[in-house]
Amino acid sequence: MAQTTRALQKTKPGPGAELVEVELPEVGPRDALIKVDVAGICGSDVPTYHWMPTAVSKVAARGLKFPFSFGHEFAGTVQEVGRDVQTVKPGDRVAGETHGPCGNCFPCNTGHRHICANMKLIGSGYPGIFSDYTVLPEICTVKLPDSMTSQQGAVLEPLGVAVHSITEADVSGKPVVILGVGPIGLFAVAAAKHLGATQIFGTARSQEKLDMAMAMGADATFNPLKVDVVAAVKEATGGIGAGAVIDMTGDPEAILQGLRMLRSRGRLVMVAQLKGALPAEVSVPLCRAEVQLTGIWGRRMYDTWLLVEHLVTSNKVDVAKVIGNS
Amino acid sequence: MAQTTRALQKTKPGPGAELVEVELPEVGPRDALIKVDVAGICGSDVPTYHWMPTAVSKVAARGLKFPFSFGHEFAGTVQEVGRDVQTVKPGDRVAGETHGPCGNCFPCNTGHRHICANMKLIGSGYPGIFSDYTVLPEICTVKLPDSMTSQQGAVLEPLGVAVHSITEADVSGKPVVILGVGPIGLFAVAAAKHLGATQIFGTARSQEKLDMAMAMGADATFNPLKVDVVAAVKEATGGIGAGAVIDMTGDPEAILQGLRMLRSRGRLVMVAQLKGALPAEVSVPLCRAEVQLTGIWGRRMYDTWLLVEHLVTSNKVDVAKVIGNS
Amino acid sequence: MAQTTRALQKTKPGPGAELVEVELPEVGPRDALIKVDVAGICGSDVPTYHWMPTAVSKVAARGLKFPFSFGHEFAGTVQEVGRDVQTVKPGDRVAGETHGPCGNCFPCNTGHRHICANMKLIGSGYPGIFSDYTVLPEICTVKLPDSMTSQQGAVLEPLGVAVHSITEADVSGKPVVILGVGPIGLFAVAAAKHLGATQIFGTARSQEKLDMAMAMGADATFNPLKVDVVAAVKEATGGIGAGAVIDMTGDPEAILQGLRMLRSRGRLVMVAQLKGALPAEVSVPLCRAEVQLTGIWGRRMYDTWLLVEHLVTSNKVDVAKVIGNS
Amino acid sequence: MAQTTRALQKTKPGPGAELVEVELPEVGPRDALIKVDVAGICGSDVPTYHWMPTAVSKVAARGLKFPFSFGHEFAGTVQEVGRDVQTVKPGDRVAGETHGPCGNCFPCNTGHRHICANMKLIGSGYPGIFSDYTVLPEICTVKLPDSMTSQQGAVLEPLGVAVHSITEADVSGKPVVILGVGPIGLFAVAAAKHLGATQIFGTARSQEKLDMAMAMGADATFNPLKVDVVAAVKEATGGIGAGAVIDMTGDPEAILQGLRMLRSRGRLVMVAQLKGALPAEVSVPLCRAEVQLTGIWGRRMYDTWLLVEHLVTSNKVDVAKVIGNS
Repeated sequence: MAQTTRALQKTKPGPGAELVEVELPEVGPRDALIKVDVAGICGSDVPTYHWMPTAVSKVAARGLKFPFSFGHEFAGTVQEVGRDVQTVKPGDRVAGETHGPCGNCFPCNTGHRHICANMKLIGSGYPGIFSDYTVLPEICTVKLPDSMTSQQGAVLEPLGVAVHSITEADVSGKPVVILGVGPIGLFAVAAAKHLGATQIFGTARSQEKLDMAMAMGADATFNPLKVDVVAAVKEATGGIGAGAVIDMTGDPEAILQGLRMLRSRGRLVMVAQLKGALPAEVSVPLCRAEVQLTGIWGRRMYDTWLLVEHLVTSNKVDVAKVIGNS
Repeated sequence: MAQTTRALQKTKPGPGAELVEVELPEVGPRDALIKVDVAGICGSDVPTYHWMPTAVSKVAARGLKFPFSFGHEFAGTVQEVGRDVQTVKPGDRVAGETHGPCGNCFPCNTGHRHICANMKLIGSGYPGIFSDYTVLPEICTVKLPDSMTSQQGAVLEPLGVAVHSITEADVSGKPVVILGVGPIGLFAVAAAKHLGATQIFGTARSQEKLDMAMAMGADATFNPLKVDVVAAVKEATGGIGAGAVIDMTGDPEAILQGLRMLRSRGRLVMVAQLKGALPAEVSVPLCRAEVQLTGIWGRRMYDTWLLVEHLVTSNKVDVAKVIGNS
Repeated sequence: MAQTTRALQKTKPGPGAELVEVELPEVGPRDALIKVDVAGICGSDVPTYHWMPTAVSKVAARGLKFPFSFGHEFAGTVQEVGRDVQTVKPGDRVAGETHGPCGNCFPCNTGHRHICANMKLIGSGYPGIFSDYTVLPEICTVKLPDSMTSQQGAVLEPLGVAVHSITEADVSGKPVVILGVGPIGLFAVAAAKHLGATQIFGTARSQEKLDMAMAMGADATFNPLKVDVVAAVKEATGGIGAGAVIDMTGDPEAILQGLRMLRSRGRLVMVAQLKGALPAEVSVPLCRAEVQLTGIWGRRMYDTWLLVEHLVTSNKVDVAKVIGNS
Repeated sequence: MAQTTRALQKTKPGPGAELVEVELPEVGPRDALIKVDVAGICGSDVPTYHWMPTAVSKVAARGLKFPFSFGHEFAGTVQEVGRDVQTVKPGDRVAGETHGPCGNCFPCNTGHRHICANMKLIGSGYPGIFSDYTVLPEICTVKLPDSMTSQQGAVLEPLGVAVHSITEADVSGKPVVILGVGPIGLFAVAAAKHLGATQIFGTARSQEKLDMAMAMGADATFNPLKVDVVAAVKEATGGIGAGAVIDMTGDPEAILQGLRMLRSRGRLVMVAQLKGALPAEVSVPLCRAEVQLTGIWGRRMYDTWLLVEHLVTSNKVDVAKVIGNS
């Protein structure tokens, strides 16, 4: 088996990355050695490559030392497994779950290991996957069905973020608004449609994104630079408002609007971290209409994975539409 | 029957109020004429009397014209009822529910009339109750059991706010923190104890309030001026954090701390409106630990009333302790 | 305004009914006088007409005296309204909600008036609607949007039963099985599809019904006389089982099977009353897999109505397919 | 370390058991060797010893071969751990969790490993613990806090069943009825009190058990041989009914009564398997009042364990009262 691999590494602070030959870690009893077949470039990989401020601070926060490899969205083929591995075997094609939970903390012990308190991530606790081969714990691998291509498989991780946001928002039978229809937002539009939202609205500042949202199944879209989105959503919902809002923007003003466009007892789910302080006015819808504000992290392990596999293999969500265009 | 009544009115902008004789409105088919036996002074009545800025802006927002009467917490005795009234009759002692829902809007039509979109309030849509007699719709009256004093009855409305915050926070089997143990916070301490919280912590900046919280059943209290409350709660909960936090302060920094002291998937319920912007850092616990931020308004009609009646008549919550001391 | 009307009445025990001229009740302050435009024949009207045992015992249980009129599914046009009516006015087209809640009991006071403890029904507490005109309380009328035909409107009541069963089963993101695809079951197939079920399976003993289920959107159907439905559902769901099962049959054996085909923590919702005792074996899936068994009654007022209106006006559920064929 | 141990074994069909010296299994990488300090005798151990029909059929169903050891409630001290064990170490005192989940099935993968589809049990998949030493997987051990005695520790497993039933019934703010106040039922009375039930009622056919229920905190008790329990509960709850019922009897008639004594939307949780068929009449409360019937299995891993540890160490539940008397 492979003992070294090419890997794309940040070898020092600053823009760029180097392709170097590195040793692979030993395959432990619960690990798998995987050949990377398809890698995805996450929105967070770009700042790492260009060494933008958000990446610099994240790398510092995680205590990463140079050199380090990066990348975490992928599909690959299992080459070798450790003695205690049960769910995958050599020859299996797998997708990567970025998150490696500890198994013993409070969230792990109460059914929420996707928000493990001691989480290790591919790209920090484990090596990044911009490489020919990688070694990961079994729990970071999800076997792909035969009917799924590896390119589709490499997209399940970000699609899972979108699907998790939709399941957390409880959209069935309700109008839903997706604030910010970038790639994850477009996936959310499609997921909302197939998980039972009655109406789906998307917002973005670019007409191109709005057009793609319509192509993914939105009923209407709004450009917040041009229309009052709160008023538009209220009007489109018979004056009642949306039952759920998903925020992909992190923009405090968008979130204030999102809370205001919710009907009573509705829920806003944040996917992106906030870019600034939330105006005090958020407490009006939170208290007066008893709406809820929450967020999500990654994907549920493995409720969400079961669902993304269904949505892709049943052709309900066409990931190619988003991959090819955004 | 009485056709006029003494009423305490704001007759013009500025501090103070006048006791004047006014005509009572006609008793409509779904109304009750009530003799006010005991009135409570809400935290919001004081600024109205002294004409403090919060009162000035609230009066403006509600479009109130001078003269207007105020006061909304009370217990009284029904004197006369309209033709279609079904739940109370002359001679019944009643408590007042401040909120008069329309019955036809989305929240009213989906089981949440306490957050009616067209709510009329005692003191704005209906006359305030600082008067000898008042006329209110049947839906703003709740019959008191014989075993309850009218003084207790007059406190059910604010006690209901506390109980509603606790039921919304889903405290059973969980440690809970009450941020700000003023009168409503003290009620919340007692309610949390009897609704199944495993541990109850209170915070305040005054030792007197902290002492009262202990007297109401808190397990420990923390003064945020003296200790790191997040660390203290984490330590007292075996490193896990609280399952629920109730905020009575409206202080953005306290709420950031409240979100940080929650265990994964925990819930923070706001009772007070925010006094300033929420720091961007709130999105870390919201997303990373998937905690929830929500608020409440008034009391559920009438789930909460059933519960407050039980808590008072069973002597689980001793309202006299709070009334006499705060 | 009309003071008498033709009405189809049961004038004595036995098969048949008579068309007689009867006086209309007075239009009370909260009532509406309605011209019946389209009436539906419910599955329960047929036994009443033919005086079958189920009808005899139901009439006895409700204490109905001869003569009485029957029928409860309809759409009509408001002619006149009482003084306190707020939601409909003369000229409005309305559908009928069979259930008239009291407004003051525990379920009414806690957001569940559709299961009012003192419910009056069209056809027993109120006159049946097989007549030219009828007088009903405002709460039994639901205004139809202009885009909906009266024929569609007359079907909202039974469609609402199906939709309520689906919302109660929480189908979003889950495979669902409809046991018994008669008219309500067919509606449930369509509702499940648009409320986010991932896969929809139907069962019936007639090929014609199974074919219609496919036409309404089922992914597969099973005839319990020919296949082991539990095994078939398990296989079709990757060995996991269904997330929800809706029973329209009342057949104890079907319900035992339904509980067995559920995945862990799944839910079975009964729409029909049981025709016999449930085998003791039901406690195995109830305890071992912690599945839930519950039932529904009518439609939520008015959560369900909002949803059926959307499903019909958006052409997601084509009621004509079911009306014309069952 | 010990390589053999005395163990109480069923060596052949028939009453009795033999104390024999047996070899201990090897301590695998995720196993712990434990000295048994205190063993509990579960209600299910007695039929095994006496070889009563329920035991005979259970042993057959589980495919057990003679000789086999039995017993599963215990506290012990860890002697040795395998290489990959993380949560316990030699010298730790532990309680035993009877259930060993697989970690890879649908319930395990969706946060419900306590109802694992491939569960191995102490006493069938793993050796019984009526022995001096035992070897168990780490996941079947729960570290005891210093403040808890081993005798208390040995009772956490059955106490956990009671607590799980109460958390599943969602009792906070509601009257609750415990049908059958044997040992688990008595624990349920105490748990309900501390998890927020407003009133607690117990039923049994023996006055001694009813007296113990009062001693554990019940508000009232009823002997179904002497009073109409449905009527008694309705009267004690102001005509509304209980919010939750827990059944420990498996008696179909008791469960029918339990469903009838629930208020609308209430929940009945079965702990015991049914002893016979459920009457068809159960569908009346299930449909008409939309109550729910469900069951539980074991204890949640490890939500329930966190709660039982709190209830015992805080002296809220005095297990000695039940151990000494039942």
